Amino acid sequence: MFEWTNGGYDYELKQLIRSWLAEDIGSGDVTTETTIPVNSVSKAVIHMKEPGIIAGIPIAQLVFEVVDESLTFKAMVEDGEHVHKGTVIIEVEGSTRSLLTGERLALNLMQRLSGIATKTNSFVQALQGLPTKLVDTRKTTPGHRNLEKYAVRVGGGYNHRFGLYDAVMIKDNHIKGAGSITAAVASARQQIPHTMKIEVETESMEQIQEAIHCGADIIMLDNMPAAAMKEAVVYIKEHSSHIIVEASGNITLDTIYDKAASGVDVISVGGLTYSFQALDISLDLNEKKGGTIA
Amino acid sequence: MFEWTNGGYDYELKQLIRSWLAEDIGSGDVTTETTIPVNSVSKAVIHMKEPGIIAGIPIAQLVFEVVDESLTFKAMVEDGEHVHKGTVIIEVEGSTRSLLTGERLALNLMQRLSGIATKTNSFVQALQGLPTKLVDTRKTTPGHRNLEKYAVRVGGGYNHRFGLYDAVMIKDNHIKGAGSITAAVASARQQIPHTMKIEVETESMEQIQEAIHCGADIIMLDNMPAAAMKEAVVYIKEHSSHIIVEASGNITLDTIYDKAASGVDVISVGGLTYSFQALDISLDLNEKKGGTIA
Amino acid sequence: MFEWTNGGYDYELKQLIRSWLAEDIGSGDVTTETTIPVNSVSKAVIHMKEPGIIAGIPIAQLVFEVVDESLTFKAMVEDGEHVHKGTVIIEVEGSTRSLLTGERLALNLMQRLSGIATKTNSFVQALQGLPTKLVDTRKTTPGHRNLEKYAVRVGGGYNHRFGLYDAVMIKDNHIKGAGSITAAVASARQQIPHTMKIEVETESMEQIQEAIHCGADIIMLDNMPAAAMKEAVVYIKEHSSHIIVEASGNITLDTIYDKAASGVDVISVGGLTYSFQALDISLDLNEKKGGTIA
Amino acid sequence: MFEWTNGGYDYELKQLIRSWLAEDIGSGDVTTETTIPVNSVSKAVIHMKEPGIIAGIPIAQLVFEVVDESLTFKAMVEDGEHVHKGTVIIEVEGSTRSLLTGERLALNLMQRLSGIATKTNSFVQALQGLPTKLVDTRKTTPGHRNLEKYAVRVGGGYNHRFGLYDAVMIKDNHIKGAGSITAAVASARQQIPHTMKIEVETESMEQIQEAIHCGADIIMLDNMPAAAMKEAVVYIKEHSSHIIVEASGNITLDTIYDKAASGVDVISVGGLTYSFQALDISLDLNEKKGGTIA
Amino acid sequence: MFEWTNGGYDYELKQLIRSWLAEDIGSGDVTTETTIPVNSVSKAVIHMKEPGIIAGIPIAQLVFEVVDESLTFKAMVEDGEHVHKGTVIIEVEGSTRSLLTGERLALNLMQRLSGIATKTNSFVQALQGLPTKLVDTRKTTPGHRNLEKYAVRVGGGYNHRFGLYDAVMIKDNHIKGAGSITAAVASARQQIPHTMKIEVETESMEQIQEAIHCGADIIMLDNMPAAAMKEAVVYIKEHSSHIIVEASGNITLDTIYDKAASGVDVISVGGLTYSFQALDISLDLNEKKGGTIA
Amino acid sequence: MFEWTNGGYDYELKQLIRSWLAEDIGSGDVTTETTIPVNSVSKAVIHMKEPGIIAGIPIAQLVFEVVDESLTFKAMVEDGEHVHKGTVIIEVEGSTRSLLTGERLALNLMQRLSGIATKTNSFVQALQGLPTKLVDTRKTTPGHRNLEKYAVRVGGGYNHRFGLYDAVMIKDNHIKGAGSITAAVASARQQIPHTMKIEVETESMEQIQEAIHCGADIIMLDNMPAAAMKEAVVYIKEHSSHIIVEASGNITLDTIYDKAASGVDVISVGGLTYSFQALDISLDLNEKKGGTIA
Repeated sequence: MFEWTNGGYDYELKQLIRSWLAEDIGSGDVTTETTIPVNSVSKAVIHMKEPGIIAGIPIAQLVFEVVDESLTFKAMVEDGEHVHKGTVIIEVEGSTRSLLTGERLALNLMQRLSGIATKTNSFVQALQGLPTKLVDTRKTTPGHRNLEKYAVRVGGGYNHRFGLYDAVMIKDNHIKGAGSITAAVASARQQIPHTMKIEVETESMEQIQEAIHCGADIIMLDNMPAAAMKEAVVYIKEHSSHIIVEASGNITLDTIYDKAASGVDVISVGGLTYSFQALDISLDLNEKKGGTIA
Repeated sequence: MFEWTNGGYDYELKQLIRSWLAEDIGSGDVTTETTIPVNSVSKAVIHMKEPGIIAGIPIAQLVFEVVDESLTFKAMVEDGEHVHKGTVIIEVEGSTRSLLTGERLALNLMQRLSGIATKTNSFVQALQGLPTKLVDTRKTTPGHRNLEKYAVRVGGGYNHRFGLYDAVMIKDNHIKGAGSITAAVASARQQIPHTMKIEVETESMEQIQEAIHCGADIIMLDNMPAAAMKEAVVYIKEHSSHIIVEASGNITLDTIYDKAASGVDVISVGGLTYSFQALDISLDLNEKKGGTIA
Repeated sequence: MFEWTNGGYDYELKQLIRSWLAEDIGSGDVTTETTIPVNSVSKAVIHMKEPGIIAGIPIAQLVFEVVDESLTFKAMVEDGEHVHKGTVIIEVEGSTRSLLTGERLALNLMQRLSGIATKTNSFVQALQGLPTKLVDTRKTTPGHRNLEKYAVRVGGGYNHRFGLYDAVMIKDNHIKGAGSITAAVASARQQIPHTMKIEVETESMEQIQEAIHCGADIIMLDNMPAAAMKEAVVYIKEHSSHIIVEASGNITLDTIYDKAASGVDVISVGGLTYSFQALDISLDLNEKKGGTIA
Repeated sequence: MFEWTNGGYDYELKQLIRSWLAEDIGSGDVTTETTIPVNSVSKAVIHMKEPGIIAGIPIAQLVFEVVDESLTFKAMVEDGEHVHKGTVIIEVEGSTRSLLTGERLALNLMQRLSGIATKTNSFVQALQGLPTKLVDTRKTTPGHRNLEKYAVRVGGGYNHRFGLYDAVMIKDNHIKGAGSITAAVASARQQIPHTMKIEVETESMEQIQEAIHCGADIIMLDNMPAAAMKEAVVYIKEHSSHIIVEASGNITLDTIYDKAASGVDVISVGGLTYSFQALDISLDLNEKKGGTIA
Repeated sequence: MFEWTNGGYDYELKQLIRSWLAEDIGSGDVTTETTIPVNSVSKAVIHMKEPGIIAGIPIAQLVFEVVDESLTFKAMVEDGEHVHKGTVIIEVEGSTRSLLTGERLALNLMQRLSGIATKTNSFVQALQGLPTKLVDTRKTTPGHRNLEKYAVRVGGGYNHRFGLYDAVMIKDNHIKGAGSITAAVASARQQIPHTMKIEVETESMEQIQEAIHCGADIIMLDNMPAAAMKEAVVYIKEHSSHIIVEASGNITLDTIYDKAASGVDVISVGGLTYSFQALDISLDLNEKKGGTIA
Repeated sequence: MFEWTNGGYDYELKQLIRSWLAEDIGSGDVTTETTIPVNSVSKAVIHMKEPGIIAGIPIAQLVFEVVDESLTFKAMVEDGEHVHKGTVIIEVEGSTRSLLTGERLALNLMQRLSGIATKTNSFVQALQGLPTKLVDTRKTTPGHRNLEKYAVRVGGGYNHRFGLYDAVMIKDNHIKGAGSITAAVASARQQIPHTMKIEVETESMEQIQEAIHCGADIIMLDNMPAAAMKEAVVYIKEHSSHIIVEASGNITLDTIYDKAASGVDVISVGGLTYSFQALDISLDLNEKKGGTIA
């Protein structure tokens, strides 16, 4: 989860990569298999066509490994580096067929993850000087959650819960279903392991007071103006200093500093993973080795 | 592939949906299972928080069906409609638990597909009055290709090949590997089924001439200025009227009309599927039924 | 997770049941298929051959449903009831072949789960009058964790974390690896979501003090005598009232009351899931319906 | 099946191990990944906390191999040995993270299998001096049959059929369904391969006579007193010397010798695999190497 | 295994059918989806283009059910019937798209299975008047064993063992590996369940004598002339009347009667499943209903 | 697809091989595991028992690799060679158990593929001197399409489309469903990618004229006499020289030369993959190495 070194997880990611390769290759890569001699060997050079924070290099390595274990993969930079247009980030050598068969998937993944890391980093920069943590949400692309949450960390952000299974988060619709914040929190606390936290989403001071009173571990302030947020933070911390306060709802690069200055501990931004610009990255065969393509 | 009615394919999509639900639910939705009574029943109303072309309604239906077959799903609009902010697009009734468990996945999918359909449609609008077809590429999100290519069709676009298996596409790197366009096309033609086409990517008039001469079925003009494109189209059609001409490479909303006016048959735009803005869509429980939420 | 009604989860359990049936049936149930006429219909009566707390009835229902959807399943008691020797707990009617094919798996599962619920309940009885919660551990049978943790709840117990993914639990070996409790907690807190708790296993007052100081959410007292426990609880609650205190380590029916009386909030007992006596349960065909077999 | 050296089977067991690891690890081992440096290396020492017959060492080896192929695994004893409290049975060296991630699953499996081998061995000891074979049943933990039947062999027992697919076993319920023993045996014999045997469960001398007459290969005596068994054995062997006689039904350590002394060839005991006491086994990091922990 | 009515097995066959459909359909049936209106409804009539024994009708039914549950399937004949050229064997009504998508797989399966049943039946006819059973071998098409062994039964034959797991069969290569027939039989008998048989392949009277002496349950005579077989059968039955005698090796329609007349109990013929002529079967849309197409 | 060197595809074939091994091995190879010592090592010699074109050697290599990676595999001939009776084609050395466990599957696959290659080659020989290509159809064994189409290429043939997904093929039933050839072609052309071809099956000159007029890329002449074919070819080539003409329908070794001489570009023969004679191939242990067994 936190790096890509765990044997168990690598296995699952490899299985995903196999299914993604199958989606692209189907019954065979007819172009490569009919135009490239089976013994042809090349060096592939992967370079940036626009600047940004790179993310996904170990994932690309896994892709080429799954396609062909005999390829030699050499990373020239590390995930999290800010790279310029033209920077060579990876060189892979070996069977030309294998390089061309894995190319599209490796690029598609790195382009997307680097886009997320780059967007995340711009929000992190906007928070400079404040203790507030930037976190993601569950608005991830289905099947890509672990990868996208990793890209958020690469960009300097933190993660919210991983899924519906590792924390209780009581939202508007749960409150309606349970009858009240108090009923929802009491019912959850009675059933969940003592190792689990409860977060409550609130929209008003009344709801905040109720959440404090019934023992929420985290209080989320949904879509509040900065001033109201500040008031809420002061109130919560006075009454229960160990409660964590989170802000959420339509927070943009323009508004994030002011919202964070209200004193909230955490700000969550869904757009980190669902509205980003993929970074353009390209692969050329047989280019000469070097730090930068002129 | 073309609609979501084929039994065989539905099965595969359901399997994907199950794996995506598993990613989110893991060992269980602790919030819903501990706060919502098991017999609670609600109506969920799904509505637009911004305008656009809607895509993915039958996919959302499958999500709720996989979660709980007893839910009643009612679509108020159809894929491809332009909907306004506030429009109610779906109503689902049944177990509150099931509604909340499926909510995030259904929204994540519709938001992404509607984003693609909306972006595609803006390009299609820009081509109005011209016979040129707009097509997508293989730059899709891994695991989502069929869905994303469907969203392109919903937006009024067409599809390029589905993967590496259903057409030969000889690019720069294949030409290097094979030695020449002529060698690549001859080698492919000798091995592929007679039911398959060959496309060649070209960057110059010399390459275009070679591609015509060796019998390419489709010639792609990569990154050419509109004037050069026009010249190329005239040349190709004169020499072999049944060759299809495709334009590609950094084509934007601003440049697409001029490029299309060069007479190319097809324009491919990778950004349709890899750099779009997801449309904001929301689910509320127990709202009253109606066409629009005030 | 908490009941067996979630569509997503039922699917996964059904897949498990299919693999368990495949383990038993292999290329076919040669006895049943060659001795029982294909149209034969029977009523199967499942009854207790020893008393205890029944658990697993909805699981048995799923087994028979997976084997043959046309069977009629009728539960005479509910999970959690204390049943006597001879009590009829289930009647299933339909294809004799299907009944005999599903028999062994349904019994194997109920026998094991009822054994866990019965053992758990004996510990819960021993805690009567005290507020202490009894919880399980990760010492479950591989592939059966969700079911066994469910059986613990049926018996009146609670669950510890579900796996390595939903809470941080810093044990002896982690402390060695990180250098100190303080280093381990700090490193974890910096990386985990703010929605996650940290538990620290301690063996001495020095470790307890360090755990309090560095901000543990839960402190586990490992293998301490009841008197030392009492002292620890008083100390912890004085310094940080919201810390949860858990006791663990070789706690038996004989010692649990005294240990609980020390004031700990939670007692974990690994033996609930790994050393229990399966309850004997039997299936007869064509017996007459009734509450008890004479 | 008989050892763990068959390529085909290892693959299936590795898949099972992966699914068991996934059950425990889920989205990641948050404790280990956030507290143990990625390059940390340790030696793990696995030792007995109570005496018994060890079983499952090659399985533990597979677990650590699946988690991380670079770990060095060294077994100090072999499956089937009687080990004392404190005996070091395994040393594993390598990445600390990998050791801690695989620990619980490796221990859970060895604890259970050693419990079965130890219980089996106590029954085998009770039969000393007699030619009777002790065998298991199909009352195994779902998903663990091959492993549990292996543990029975490690403890000195033999296996009954592996599942419903490799022998015909006509029980009470089949006799009811078919109309009579004779009808059941005749119907089965007509359809099964000539390479397959038929066993019949009997409860009386009349049933035994019928089973002999219609050509059963094996006759099982269900729940008979030792004296009646003796009479049955003499009768069967007189009439058809190649028929194998099996005893079954509530046979305990106290009664097994007398029952075996009746002359039956085989005694089956379900409790070998469904009511055993798991053996306590523990893993410590960085302990010094040696045969016994003081 | 013996019929296609077992819930558990149907599930596995359905999974196979899904993978076979996926092999054919891939990303979609482009012809059907683009030429047949989504609401078009037809009746498909499946008829014989040559005479033979029909097998596979319930399999075809499963194929159409997997493709589209709403199709109406009507079988006009049953597996095992001898049908004439032109006989209508099946009518299926419903979505034209579904009919065309399932057509090829349903026909491919029935054509192959009917070919096997027809060939088997010709051998069974040749044995008329003799008690000898005709059986198949393990020379089946990978992935189709259960289906092909079913087709053998439909044609009037019997099955040899289902795989390597349900009987011991000691061949030439095993004898070499074990040292002798005696060593091989003794080693196997010591380890296998008492519910399993041992067959020994022999090529000479010396081997036959050794096999009798060491307790083989079945003796196979490999590639012997009819006269030698007769001698062998007499010898074996004199010495041990319950041993089953099987003949094997290059037995053809011309030689089978003479070989069977030697008194062997069973004759195995590999060619039943690996060298047969598929029966030509065809599907037409919208034909009028009737027993025979003129 | 075209060779067996693509990493991605090898993975899928290995998975198929594992499922085929599981079909045969089930819970274990009881004969080999109980008669062959675990450390026994042998050389297996695989040789032809009848002459033909060999196909499937790399597939057999994969089978033995999946069974046991430590086996040494040495091919003495290459796929496509014409081999004589007695020719040694493969030697494999290593664990005797592994050799015996993989034997049947490796042989079953090579026997079938060599049968297809041999039959294909006899048709290719019959076309000698003519430019006509021989191609296969979709009448392949379910689950074996890629392998069987490979065997056709080994025998000197070519492939028709790989499945329903990579070309449009409008047959009689589609024409009925769409209303006319013109309607079907127009509807397909409007929806398919520009990278895909359309083939139309015709039975008369009227249909041929319609197919030419509406822009078919390939015209198939179904079941026409050679004379009518010749007339059709002349007509088609006059009107549209780039249209490919294919002949199909009951073409045998006797008729293929005359049909090809009509000038058609391609002849498709379903029987290549569904009615062939498997080649007899055998494995012996410990034979001495050499080119031919006397």
